[in-house]
Amino acid sequence: MKSLPTNVTIIEVGPRDGLQNEKNFVSTDRKVNFIKKLTSAGIKEMEITSFVSPKWVPQMQDATEIVASNPELTRKLVLAPNQKGVERALEAGCDAIAVFVGVSNSFNKKNINKSTKQSLEELKPIITKLKEKNLFVRACISTAFYCPFEGKIKENDTIALCKEFASSGVDELSVADTIGMATPIESYSLFSSLIECLPDILLTAHFHDTRKMALSNIYAALQAGIHRFDTSAGGLGGCPFAPGATGNVATEDVVYMLERMGIRTGIDLDALVEAINVVSPSLTRRIETGYYQLATN
Amino acid sequence: MKSLPTNVTIIEVGPRDGLQNEKNFVSTDRKVNFIKKLTSAGIKEMEITSFVSPKWVPQMQDATEIVASNPELTRKLVLAPNQKGVERALEAGCDAIAVFVGVSNSFNKKNINKSTKQSLEELKPIITKLKEKNLFVRACISTAFYCPFEGKIKENDTIALCKEFASSGVDELSVADTIGMATPIESYSLFSSLIECLPDILLTAHFHDTRKMALSNIYAALQAGIHRFDTSAGGLGGCPFAPGATGNVATEDVVYMLERMGIRTGIDLDALVEAINVVSPSLTRRIETGYYQLATN
Repeated sequence: MKSLPTNVTIIEVGPRDGLQNEKNFVSTDRKVNFIKKLTSAGIKEMEITSFVSPKWVPQMQDATEIVASNPELTRKLVLAPNQKGVERALEAGCDAIAVFVGVSNSFNKKNINKSTKQSLEELKPIITKLKEKNLFVRACISTAFYCPFEGKIKENDTIALCKEFASSGVDELSVADTIGMATPIESYSLFSSLIECLPDILLTAHFHDTRKMALSNIYAALQAGIHRFDTSAGGLGGCPFAPGATGNVATEDVVYMLERMGIRTGIDLDALVEAINVVSPSLTRRIETGYYQLATN
Repeated sequence: MKSLPTNVTIIEVGPRDGLQNEKNFVSTDRKVNFIKKLTSAGIKEMEITSFVSPKWVPQMQDATEIVASNPELTRKLVLAPNQKGVERALEAGCDAIAVFVGVSNSFNKKNINKSTKQSLEELKPIITKLKEKNLFVRACISTAFYCPFEGKIKENDTIALCKEFASSGVDELSVADTIGMATPIESYSLFSSLIECLPDILLTAHFHDTRKMALSNIYAALQAGIHRFDTSAGGLGGCPFAPGATGNVATEDVVYMLERMGIRTGIDLDALVEAINVVSPSLTRRIETGYYQLATN
């Protein structure tokens, strides 16, 4: 067990992973303002939008405009699921691309109509080209612990897929408990193994709070040596293709716990609440996260 | 850091700590049925009611009838805050009494209009008499980490008060993060110290989920060697005298996490949901716990 880190990097996924699940279109202006306020709150890395088919995810139809707003971030990540998405992202001027694949074959098929192996083979040359252009590439590894269709995923399968992506040249692996079923024991075990196997890659943990274990899993991942976490302001998000996959862990609850443990995130909680207030009037759901409720009641 | 236990004891506090905060009177029949169903779900220790002034807490006016219903529990705890309450509890035929005191002076005064020291001095002879009658005595140590009025409580003050109660002869200490502000680091630290100082007493951790850290704190307490936890079915409860002290950690979310980690609780989750369904129609609040929402949606 490692000693806890003194600093943690938060990768905000609310504008992408969060908003993509909102049925009502959130205006581009509001999205830009949301991203700007998140940046003012101290967020340095963020998934700002997604270059997916506007037919399938109308919420993300303004991806090019969002990129053009050019928020002051160390890393402006955009999700691009395939060759076409990557081309659009590059045209828009992106310099950090996130791709994704599920460890679970069934999940991957339901999500993007390809097997995990097909996805991997399709992504490899794309990643090579992106690295040739010196772009930052993040691989989002979903269903890394459990799949809504297949159940428990073998740790070795997740590790094998992570190794494949690492050898393909990605800069970061975001390893996700997509349906919020992992326990602290599983979090500690997988992240300890990954740190040992892949010491030279940025390893990020992505937890959902579906079963209220997200903060425990983060605590266990910290003990394993992880110091990068994906979180979503207001706990927005989930996965439309994964039954029961509600709620990314809330940025404000993670920042609160970390800062209270003396672990610096560089994020201001009051400013974070202001950022959530920018987008909350457009949402169909209520923000139920711990810190936000206390701060606004 | 200790290895995790194979078994954990859950002390259900919903019928007392949970219901006492409900404004509308829950009928005695429904309470009895709630307790019965919780017992059927596998709960063996429970705070079933409270012998407090019916003027101050009308919800608990049926304490004698609740005790008379005689649920099949290893330990039927009743809360009795003072000499009068203890007398009523004994008349009703109780054999396990919980007393309480806040480490914080201000909290104790707001709560029972006495200083912590006055409470302790008043309780000592009561505890002695109860132990002479061979009754089980539990001391609930509230504001063991933070106080809504005084802020951070010194770990040494909590330890000193716990030692005082231990030397007065109580069987169990239930050490509470009354306003849900403790972090996993603080949980690990206090419980490690208490286990070292007081190896011969039953030590129970009582967490609130106000800031979503309850399960993380439980995980840290397990690592410190704690294997007894107070929880509340449906996450009912809080403290009417502590601003922001909403939500005991939910029995179902704790049981889910523990069982998933291979730690046995002896509690059946489906039966637990049935128990919550008995009482939920009488509540003014919505049950928002992770497991319950997934199981009933």
